[in-house]
Amino acid sequence: MIKSLICTIGDELLIGQITDTNAAFMARELNKTGVLVTQIRSVGDSREAIWELLDAALKEADLVVLTGGLGPTRDDITKNTLALYTGSRRFYRSEVQEAHIRAICEKRGNHLFEINRAQADVPETCTVLENRLGTAPGMWFDYKGKIIISLPGVPYEMEGIFPIVTQAIQRHFSASLCPVIHRNIATFGIPESVLAQQIADWEEALPPQLHLAYLPNPLSGVKLRLSIYESQGGESIIEQEITLLKSILGNAVYSTSDQSLAEVVGALLIQKEATVATAESCTGGKIAAMLTAQAGASAYYLGSVLAYHNRIKEELLEVPADLLHQYGAVSRECVEAMAQGAKKRFGADYAVATSGIAGPSGGTIEKPTGTVWIGVAAPQKCTAQKFIFSGNRLINIDRFAATALHMLRLEIL
Amino acid sequence: MIKSLICTIGDELLIGQITDTNAAFMARELNKTGVLVTQIRSVGDSREAIWELLDAALKEADLVVLTGGLGPTRDDITKNTLALYTGSRRFYRSEVQEAHIRAICEKRGNHLFEINRAQADVPETCTVLENRLGTAPGMWFDYKGKIIISLPGVPYEMEGIFPIVTQAIQRHFSASLCPVIHRNIATFGIPESVLAQQIADWEEALPPQLHLAYLPNPLSGVKLRLSIYESQGGESIIEQEITLLKSILGNAVYSTSDQSLAEVVGALLIQKEATVATAESCTGGKIAAMLTAQAGASAYYLGSVLAYHNRIKEELLEVPADLLHQYGAVSRECVEAMAQGAKKRFGADYAVATSGIAGPSGGTIEKPTGTVWIGVAAPQKCTAQKFIFSGNRLINIDRFAATALHMLRLEIL
Repeated sequence: MIKSLICTIGDELLIGQITDTNAAFMARELNKTGVLVTQIRSVGDSREAIWELLDAALKEADLVVLTGGLGPTRDDITKNTLALYTGSRRFYRSEVQEAHIRAICEKRGNHLFEINRAQADVPETCTVLENRLGTAPGMWFDYKGKIIISLPGVPYEMEGIFPIVTQAIQRHFSASLCPVIHRNIATFGIPESVLAQQIADWEEALPPQLHLAYLPNPLSGVKLRLSIYESQGGESIIEQEITLLKSILGNAVYSTSDQSLAEVVGALLIQKEATVATAESCTGGKIAAMLTAQAGASAYYLGSVLAYHNRIKEELLEVPADLLHQYGAVSRECVEAMAQGAKKRFGADYAVATSGIAGPSGGTIEKPTGTVWIGVAAPQKCTAQKFIFSGNRLINIDRFAATALHMLRLEIL
Repeated sequence: MIKSLICTIGDELLIGQITDTNAAFMARELNKTGVLVTQIRSVGDSREAIWELLDAALKEADLVVLTGGLGPTRDDITKNTLALYTGSRRFYRSEVQEAHIRAICEKRGNHLFEINRAQADVPETCTVLENRLGTAPGMWFDYKGKIIISLPGVPYEMEGIFPIVTQAIQRHFSASLCPVIHRNIATFGIPESVLAQQIADWEEALPPQLHLAYLPNPLSGVKLRLSIYESQGGESIIEQEITLLKSILGNAVYSTSDQSLAEVVGALLIQKEATVATAESCTGGKIAAMLTAQAGASAYYLGSVLAYHNRIKEELLEVPADLLHQYGAVSRECVEAMAQGAKKRFGADYAVATSGIAGPSGGTIEKPTGTVWIGVAAPQKCTAQKFIFSGNRLINIDRFAATALHMLRLEIL
């Protein structure tokens, strides 16, 4: 079993200025590759702290993965510390990284300073892991029979380099790796505790080598994660259990292959050659942002009228003024009219509309904060449903938007 | 200087199943209280791992704060491990915590089992830190001159207990505490390396007791963090440097009090009693979502036409068809027309419009992926500007949206 230690570097972590999301990403990827993560540590931008960390880590681990401290400014000291630690007597300039740096500066229209070019300089004791998305390269050190990997702390740059890291680990450790298979069964619309009761018998009967975990999230519902060592049977055992689970939960399962709700909806629309438009009030563009985050969304997504103000609901979505007056904006009648209006206005096959109270203020006794009406106009009919959630403003907006996408999904199905 | 080590416990952290948000919260609170956090560690639910961690931590730190592993099930082993570690020969039942447990079970409508009541049992070597929001109490161990604090891993329970922790730390360490003051100067529109050169002289002349760090982020620009010990001069020294920095960077500084771009824009609009509408294409609702994430946005935000399809740009925003034909949707002419169209359509004082290529496909040689035109219509004029970024689709959308908000801010100013 290859043991690894993850270390994130930065004073900002120790004062709590940022939440460390890199560690979880890397832990997931290392696990998938078959590397056991025994510990995660965060230390400050200090030579002594990094040095002590490496001493301790290399005693117990075969592999240490570091992120952070590779920027161009004076407080970034990881590279120099690693050079000293591994006994590098000189730096060399990576031509391939210098080319990336030049391309990035040109594309951004920034002048290429020597401070930028110097980011391509790396200790002679390392191999460069190319960073196409940023200026600081990753580094791979083969040091006294152990591996030290250093990656930039900017999450999307680190994530961009990680496939190269995975390949290098696979080449280097090959047969010693014990890959774990994880599969997520994504459900929507069933609270965690109810879900647990619905699948209690199934859970009880799971083969012992399978591990189950519940992962609830406002934007993606409750995910069930099944894990197993590849060597203990792997994919086929999981596949059987997923089939059983789907027969219990039905349409509440929207993905078993890590697709987001928006991706699933997009794929359904492409399959049906249908289009969708949105009319958002309380969700404030969140549904649109979720749909358009998908590459190729323009094939099925036509657009939205974001009617934050009631006047816009009347003018652009043709919601009758007396309807708004009689029932209010947060009502079945209003979201149905909004959905119909958007469907007509955009010439779409489907339209989804929201109107609710995200909070913190605006709630009443009849319509408390967290109330939302969601309307879905389909080619032949229009439906609406009310939900009441109990989060803060941002959590409520997320829940409203995700629930709207799920209602749209069920309607298309 | 009181040194502390934060430790989060749980197998789910080591497989990357959840992101550790507790560590950042505790780091912030400990810093404010005047405790230096020297390291953050995550370990698994294993007695050996926790034991080794305590051995190592107590060598270098005065205070160790642990979270996690306090639940009622078999894999929760933190409490027993701490009992053994501190040499407790027996447990005692905390009456005050037992009362909380009873109240919580009643409120949730759950039967009170002995397994629940037993959560009020704690080692004789500790003092209870009451948990009103959950069943597992926090524990305070005074052990061989060092302090060990154990808290539940559920974030809102941990956060609920923390004020008691802070008070206990202040009582115990009193005069030895050294509170640190941090201030963030948020800038937008200047790349990190250019910024570093612009402020190089200022940085060089900083008083030695001030510490500077650069924190770049696609959505919030580059933040500069100044830190100082309260005892070394504190707020007034930082305030002087912020004044100097603002005179160097001018309008690029959008906040010195941790406001987001959307908050700053909202405050400006309220101050001017002005309204804004948006017309988004490539940003797909992101600008709207950022603006409406602010409570009270309805005071200044009217709505948006999300014109993903060119036909919508013509029909709802009155962008002339021949303009689109002649210049294309990603052009100065188009975004100016979109901004003007939205301003008129919504009757707003300001409008901001985007059209670009977020990727991954859709780019050409003249208009590569990452290109965006942003238009801002103000009461008296309309301006537009082109930017080229180099992230993936989601990062590009974030950068486009943040840049649009910043252009809007500069226009209102």
